[in-house]
Amino acid sequence: MSSCSRRRHELSKWLEQDELDLFIVSSRPNLRYLTGFTGEGIGIVSPSEAVLITDRRYEVEAGEEAPDCQVIFAEQGHLQQFASYLAELGQCRAGFESQHLSYSSHKKLAELADAAELVPVEEVVEGQRAIKDDTEIAAIRRAAQVVSEAVPVVVAELAVGITERELSLRLREAILQTGGDDVSFEPVVAFGENSARAHAVPTQRKIAEGDIVLIDAGGKVDGYCSDMTRTVVFGELNKKFIEVYKTVRQAQQAALAAIVPGAVAAEVDAQAREVIDSSPYKGRFGHSLGHGVGLEVHEGPKLGKKSEEVLAAGQVVTNEPGIYLPGWGGVRLEELLLVTEQGAQPLTYAPYLGL
Amino acid sequence: MSSCSRRRHELSKWLEQDELDLFIVSSRPNLRYLTGFTGEGIGIVSPSEAVLITDRRYEVEAGEEAPDCQVIFAEQGHLQQFASYLAELGQCRAGFESQHLSYSSHKKLAELADAAELVPVEEVVEGQRAIKDDTEIAAIRRAAQVVSEAVPVVVAELAVGITERELSLRLREAILQTGGDDVSFEPVVAFGENSARAHAVPTQRKIAEGDIVLIDAGGKVDGYCSDMTRTVVFGELNKKFIEVYKTVRQAQQAALAAIVPGAVAAEVDAQAREVIDSSPYKGRFGHSLGHGVGLEVHEGPKLGKKSEEVLAAGQVVTNEPGIYLPGWGGVRLEELLLVTEQGAQPLTYAPYLGL
Repeated sequence: MSSCSRRRHELSKWLEQDELDLFIVSSRPNLRYLTGFTGEGIGIVSPSEAVLITDRRYEVEAGEEAPDCQVIFAEQGHLQQFASYLAELGQCRAGFESQHLSYSSHKKLAELADAAELVPVEEVVEGQRAIKDDTEIAAIRRAAQVVSEAVPVVVAELAVGITERELSLRLREAILQTGGDDVSFEPVVAFGENSARAHAVPTQRKIAEGDIVLIDAGGKVDGYCSDMTRTVVFGELNKKFIEVYKTVRQAQQAALAAIVPGAVAAEVDAQAREVIDSSPYKGRFGHSLGHGVGLEVHEGPKLGKKSEEVLAAGQVVTNEPGIYLPGWGGVRLEELLLVTEQGAQPLTYAPYLGL
Repeated sequence: MSSCSRRRHELSKWLEQDELDLFIVSSRPNLRYLTGFTGEGIGIVSPSEAVLITDRRYEVEAGEEAPDCQVIFAEQGHLQQFASYLAELGQCRAGFESQHLSYSSHKKLAELADAAELVPVEEVVEGQRAIKDDTEIAAIRRAAQVVSEAVPVVVAELAVGITERELSLRLREAILQTGGDDVSFEPVVAFGENSARAHAVPTQRKIAEGDIVLIDAGGKVDGYCSDMTRTVVFGELNKKFIEVYKTVRQAQQAALAAIVPGAVAAEVDAQAREVIDSSPYKGRFGHSLGHGVGLEVHEGPKLGKKSEEVLAAGQVVTNEPGIYLPGWGGVRLEELLLVTEQGAQPLTYAPYLGL
């Protein structure tokens, strides 16, 4: 049984429990997870079959990637074609991804296939995806290796005059050269006070002596992502940087120790946040501790202040506290981890500063 | 008046006509268009004010990019924060983007702010965005220039052994070097039979003598995109390629002549399609003729078989017919055009093969 058909089989068990006849897959990563197809389309999973609605732009991919799905090439829009399919089925209970289907697409479907009962479903495939199987873990390991090798290469090449954009491009190149199929997101490179932006976009700013250098990047291997952040200084470290860095690192280590199966995500976040909030930088860790990583670079589980999710073996999550001081800069340190029965196992491994 | 406040002023006139008290902006490009803010958030536009709900990750950007908006930093989720805002307003008629708000977000909003009447709205800001103002046209012109200069540079560098991925990376670099802030999408590079995939993703395939080389790329300047495709051959042209290329070029020129204000998009598409469908390659043009380009690389108007939209001066659209023959390869030629009262004005200008 292929990975995809195994996943559909799992989903079908859930469908039967919920007395649903079929499940409509409109989210692209969920579609890939369940069918292998990497293009745009709509999937229909039922206990007896898997159907893929796409269009002729993806003729080659559909045949190669989803050999065990019935493929329908839409003549009009995918949604229109799917509505016809559903209307032909007549009375049925069809689950749909309520977080991925827009209000207007839902309305159109409900009008065009009025014999079908559309049942909103949240996070079912996302829940399956949160626990990675061996093939997935192997791909993520390779994606983690790629970024762990690539970041030190570009850090070693830092030189007067290089811009954030040039370094970001160089990092992309290094990620491809170390074996990535792609980057998992546009590499973030922020110099000096730009590093205070938690989601900085690389600019034409040239590096200057003494600049903080924050690098947040990931590679993609076989569709799976990695995500890692390191912060260094171009030149001499100053006292304030050392203090901030050590605080972030302590926060990260506190969280690391708490990442075990059964831990509540909010409590893991609290471990890191407490370290920062009992330092002079109280309140300057302005985002969540981490997130799951897989086919998407941001997926479940979420590790935030209010996350009630319970961690489980087989999850892959980031641990990325940071301190951001507008006008000065920021330090973020991020590791990608596999949750195992023995605790968290780091997948990324670029060196930290020996402070 | 800034561009953004002028756009909000236009939107407000429409709100008043439709007796809406406010408009909820959840689409990211629409948010940028109306506020200048480039991060994630929710915007609220009313005749009297503009409010931006985001979070502390975007503290710096919010202040710099949206100086004339009231900024609220959400402590929980953006949607939750917005629901509180809406609940405080009490009774009101609030338009929402029904194509961008998910079924479940709509449901949550309706529950949390039950005094508000949520009115589904389609394509209003998209309609505004379809007609570009002078600042926008200037940015798109530069983005078009960037890709027009960059593609010939990499075509001239084609050499035995280079892979699709390497060429795609090289093209990205050339786009940045010619003045692009970024690429507008991952550059598509397809060799040989891979060019039959209308949406090919660059692979590790190495170029071989006689390969078709299809390059589809765009640059970004000040947030605005360009989009252009050229197809060449690495080595000698053969008879079949020449025949296919000429047919596509004729189709493109037929469409070009038809792109004038007042033309119905489907009829423009038909001009190109007829050329291909009366050739030996009938039915092998498996996608729409083109699309609008602006803050998004795909936006309105759509130029397809069934598009009833009427073209207007100030629109920026692509004209990109193609012929795809699985197992052999494909040829696509794409120009970016500004619709003017005098007809279509090409913005991209990389040379074609002199066939």
